Amino acid sequence: MPIVYGDIGSGNCYKIALLLSQLGIQHEWRETLVTRGDTRTDDFRAMNPAAQIPVVTLDNGTVLTQSNAILYWFAHNTALAPSDPLLMTRVLEWQFFEQYSHEPTIAVRRFIKKYLNLPADRVQQFEQLEEGGYRALGVLESRLCDHDYLVGESYTLADISLYAYTHVADEGGFDLSSYPGINRWLSRVRNEPGYISMDGGK
Amino acid sequence: MPIVYGDIGSGNCYKIALLLSQLGIQHEWRETLVTRGDTRTDDFRAMNPAAQIPVVTLDNGTVLTQSNAILYWFAHNTALAPSDPLLMTRVLEWQFFEQYSHEPTIAVRRFIKKYLNLPADRVQQFEQLEEGGYRALGVLESRLCDHDYLVGESYTLADISLYAYTHVADEGGFDLSSYPGINRWLSRVRNEPGYISMDGGK
Repeated sequence: MPIVYGDIGSGNCYKIALLLSQLGIQHEWRETLVTRGDTRTDDFRAMNPAAQIPVVTLDNGTVLTQSNAILYWFAHNTALAPSDPLLMTRVLEWQFFEQYSHEPTIAVRRFIKKYLNLPADRVQQFEQLEEGGYRALGVLESRLCDHDYLVGESYTLADISLYAYTHVADEGGFDLSSYPGINRWLSRVRNEPGYISMDGGK
Repeated sequence: MPIVYGDIGSGNCYKIALLLSQLGIQHEWRETLVTRGDTRTDDFRAMNPAAQIPVVTLDNGTVLTQSNAILYWFAHNTALAPSDPLLMTRVLEWQFFEQYSHEPTIAVRRFIKKYLNLPADRVQQFEQLEEGGYRALGVLESRLCDHDYLVGESYTLADISLYAYTHVADEGGFDLSSYPGINRWLSRVRNEPGYISMDGGK
């Protein structure tokens, strides 16, 4: 049975929990908290030199890292990772956008506010990340204002990857009220079969 | 014929030039410079709302963005994008690592130093990015100290993605002399068939 090392409150880890629930894949979840130093131990670094969660280990000892790569591993033979090359390219476009432009603004602001409680020495960074976060939300809205899903006509890994931090962007101080396309899409994702919420409930 | 909008001196764009050369794919290169404002025009944003290079357009009007996704599009049916799911997962692990931990430190320091000439108001950021850049190089070295390539036993998209900014890391103030694995690998990549250098020469 796969073991997931993660923190369900981290969007990058929640992606894995959501996918495994939707695919019905049994797994063991080992709570691994950045704020408790769990990722900086020698044992953890031996698994992942980048010292990041999530990490997944398979029965044969294979270690997988990087949330979006882990999603591909579990979903590569399902409709969530389209076999059509152009659609799969589109999934990757959104996932690289997520890791480069969306997570480093929206997730980092949430971390500073929710986990660190906005300490004085992080206020400047928190404020500087606002513009980039809204820019990322604008890119999302430009797709979702007239499409049901990020790629093609159906739910894919791209939706899982972008949903993870977008649906809790308010916890980083972002106001989503003027993004109707994003809001319709958030509701659509919540209604997908096998959906679980970020606290692990249904 | 595909059109590439890019700046060959940008590692993210160079990835595309290198791959297309190695696959022997004819294309038109339209020089698009961030420092000249070319990515902030209305026409460019209509192609890519994220206002980033590279962008590729295909004969049928399809627009592709995100360097690593573009690599997948052109290489998906070649050995550079392995058909084995675990090897392809490994390629993606390295590419997401590149966009999240490697490019935002190593490429950004190079941009500040080489393109902006290290202005006073960017010195603090330049210095802060040093630690993360060396950490990323350490992760690369931990693989390359005892492997010829990043994934499996042969050259893949992962090598192209990580080579792009690693081989010019010195231009961002990084000293690669104590990374023997990285240096052997840089030399190996330079000897791959169809290699072109970052200035477009052979």
